Amino acid sequence: MASTHRAQILAEFLGTGTLVATVVGSGIMAENLAAGNTAVALLGNTIPTGAILFVLITMLGPISGAHFNPVVSLAFFLRKELAASTTIQFVVAQIIGGILGCLIANFMFELDVVQISEKVRTGPAQWVSEITATVGLLLTILVCLKSKPTAIPAAVGLYITAAYWFTSSTSFANPAVAISRIFSNTFAGIRPEDAAFFIAAQLLGMGLAIIVSKFLLEESAD
Amino acid sequence: MASTHRAQILAEFLGTGTLVATVVGSGIMAENLAAGNTAVALLGNTIPTGAILFVLITMLGPISGAHFNPVVSLAFFLRKELAASTTIQFVVAQIIGGILGCLIANFMFELDVVQISEKVRTGPAQWVSEITATVGLLLTILVCLKSKPTAIPAAVGLYITAAYWFTSSTSFANPAVAISRIFSNTFAGIRPEDAAFFIAAQLLGMGLAIIVSKFLLEESAD
Amino acid sequence: MASTHRAQILAEFLGTGTLVATVVGSGIMAENLAAGNTAVALLGNTIPTGAILFVLITMLGPISGAHFNPVVSLAFFLRKELAASTTIQFVVAQIIGGILGCLIANFMFELDVVQISEKVRTGPAQWVSEITATVGLLLTILVCLKSKPTAIPAAVGLYITAAYWFTSSTSFANPAVAISRIFSNTFAGIRPEDAAFFIAAQLLGMGLAIIVSKFLLEESAD
Amino acid sequence: MASTHRAQILAEFLGTGTLVATVVGSGIMAENLAAGNTAVALLGNTIPTGAILFVLITMLGPISGAHFNPVVSLAFFLRKELAASTTIQFVVAQIIGGILGCLIANFMFELDVVQISEKVRTGPAQWVSEITATVGLLLTILVCLKSKPTAIPAAVGLYITAAYWFTSSTSFANPAVAISRIFSNTFAGIRPEDAAFFIAAQLLGMGLAIIVSKFLLEESAD
Repeated sequence: MASTHRAQILAEFLGTGTLVATVVGSGIMAENLAAGNTAVALLGNTIPTGAILFVLITMLGPISGAHFNPVVSLAFFLRKELAASTTIQFVVAQIIGGILGCLIANFMFELDVVQISEKVRTGPAQWVSEITATVGLLLTILVCLKSKPTAIPAAVGLYITAAYWFTSSTSFANPAVAISRIFSNTFAGIRPEDAAFFIAAQLLGMGLAIIVSKFLLEESAD
Repeated sequence: MASTHRAQILAEFLGTGTLVATVVGSGIMAENLAAGNTAVALLGNTIPTGAILFVLITMLGPISGAHFNPVVSLAFFLRKELAASTTIQFVVAQIIGGILGCLIANFMFELDVVQISEKVRTGPAQWVSEITATVGLLLTILVCLKSKPTAIPAAVGLYITAAYWFTSSTSFANPAVAISRIFSNTFAGIRPEDAAFFIAAQLLGMGLAIIVSKFLLEESAD
Repeated sequence: MASTHRAQILAEFLGTGTLVATVVGSGIMAENLAAGNTAVALLGNTIPTGAILFVLITMLGPISGAHFNPVVSLAFFLRKELAASTTIQFVVAQIIGGILGCLIANFMFELDVVQISEKVRTGPAQWVSEITATVGLLLTILVCLKSKPTAIPAAVGLYITAAYWFTSSTSFANPAVAISRIFSNTFAGIRPEDAAFFIAAQLLGMGLAIIVSKFLLEESAD
Repeated sequence: MASTHRAQILAEFLGTGTLVATVVGSGIMAENLAAGNTAVALLGNTIPTGAILFVLITMLGPISGAHFNPVVSLAFFLRKELAASTTIQFVVAQIIGGILGCLIANFMFELDVVQISEKVRTGPAQWVSEITATVGLLLTILVCLKSKPTAIPAAVGLYITAAYWFTSSTSFANPAVAISRIFSNTFAGIRPEDAAFFIAAQLLGMGLAIIVSKFLLEESAD
């Protein structure tokens, strides 16, 4: 039997909230402990994020599809696999969940619960990073859905594990995460004005991924 | 054929003992070697803990269910999936096993075998951390049991890997572990008076998780 | 239905490009952040590389076989499992993809897009490292193809994770990667004159692996 | 069809050789790069060892059973699952393979190929560590063989990942590895006189594990 619509929205809300709490919380923990060794801090941010993605997608995938990401929901809408109304509800649940996840992380680490980031993340190198990161994330999802759907929790978790390091932006690749991280003035944060450019780059990456996936998944007639 | 009752109790005893020996032992090893870089020490504590959880749940799950955690056994009791007498025996085996695991870790690292922690872990931020960590752990177990039971060893191992970093308490999320870590006056320890509050928070988290899981697992009638 | 020839070439091109972008990009990120602790930098290079190999082989394996490596394509040609023309096209796509992946990594980290490495990697110890690393990589692929093909994405990702550390060359084990890394004058680079010797060692390792695999896969007649 | 006897011996030889080359090689690499931060060095030793165990057991398990460890072969002999002559041949192949793996690691890192360790590893804390580590390793193998054999490559790799950190001896748990590491005067080495005590502790651990496994695997008659 299928999950109820209410359960699906709850899954997107809780999943995105937990994802952002992990990204921001582990970022704060890592920065607090790393005594200035930023490579160690990034390891302490990367490993928990990859781990929680495996958990959340495994657990909530059968309920809502485990998007936790507006560009993922939008891509399924554009492929006519998600209704417009559900797409909008998912995106709203993702953004509200993500912001709450960030605020809870702030509380758990005794920081001001509401804060606005001053962390600068801008420039062509970072925008190309976000385009590249999002193309890769969407291709991972769209191609694995056809070639090996059971591997998606591990593939997405490990893709983000890699993408934290091979892009200069540390791969947000997710508008809900970009918006939520505005509310963390730490290692993991992003200024509001920079988040807008990141989201534009992510939307562009999504469009590119949909095109490239069609070529990759092309099959011979015989 | 099913495992005998005696084998089940032994599995809970050995599993919780090995889990606590790993948490405490790797904590001591990491603190000894990390030369003050606490983020590296936490990596050296996190990776072994996540790894041993995968091993123990894979190996002992088919015997006892691999709870290793009083709030997990209690949740199954409240869901009427575990008899009262078995629940009590499991919890006792978990606590005794956990304490012995801590003492063995102390011995293996040439520390006083019996010691009482003076490590302060208190305050609302840490209590909310324990509530959050326990809600997440129980949801991982209860939801995966329905959606993907074969993934539980990896999901629980990776959930705790993440939760070490996204909470300020490093996610005990387990009363037997909280009690056992009283007997380690190291990086991994907790004062007796603080353990009591952690356990209260864990029980609260368990209750919340049972409620949330019902909404998440709600299915449409058609 | 099988993937088209065009999709296969694209998969080899994109896969090798992403692999090299990850190796080089994470190398730059790790070197930038590690403040001189090269062991931490190598962890920050190893973990993303192992992770992306799992992702790329899972995702693109069903399309092209996910070689991403001229000695792998050549080994399949020598075993008469890949046509000569396809082998040549795969190798060309791998080399061009790899070089472009390196240039994109340079751009994402605000380095000169085209640069030639001055990093010295030479001497018998490193050549024996490359022979050893390539024997191990090819055996992993050729033996697992027979004994456990579904495990190849994890096995190759984890083999390279180990080989980064147990060889003094950090295990290139791939001529396309060796050529591409010429274009990165960083932690991850290699001088053109040294790359030639690495490639010779890799070809030798491939030959050895094909011979050893025959003995390992020998079966009794009964 | 079953592998030939010759292929089985070769698998034990190559597997143990690669395991020891990884343990020693990654130990040298980690010590060279870690600039005195021993916790980082141990991470750089642990992650490759866990990774290569997964690869080797996945790949060679279907050929020889992938013991790579005299106490594992001996345990199967005692359970009457391995003939005496095969047991002896396996143990000899493991020891010779392991020693050669160590010498190759020495060569790859430009150290004297033949060297004798002066690294002290002695005392009751380390002996209890080796007993504990071996009990855990053997239980992982013997219990998973019954409850979840397909998980053995991951379970053994992750068990050793944990055991590196929760024991003060860093868990050799393998007489062939103990003998081989005599030939590395580095971070990963062990003095000949200390290796003898480690092997005695490992044999004792094996015996305990066989007894405990019988209780754990006890099944009810109904």
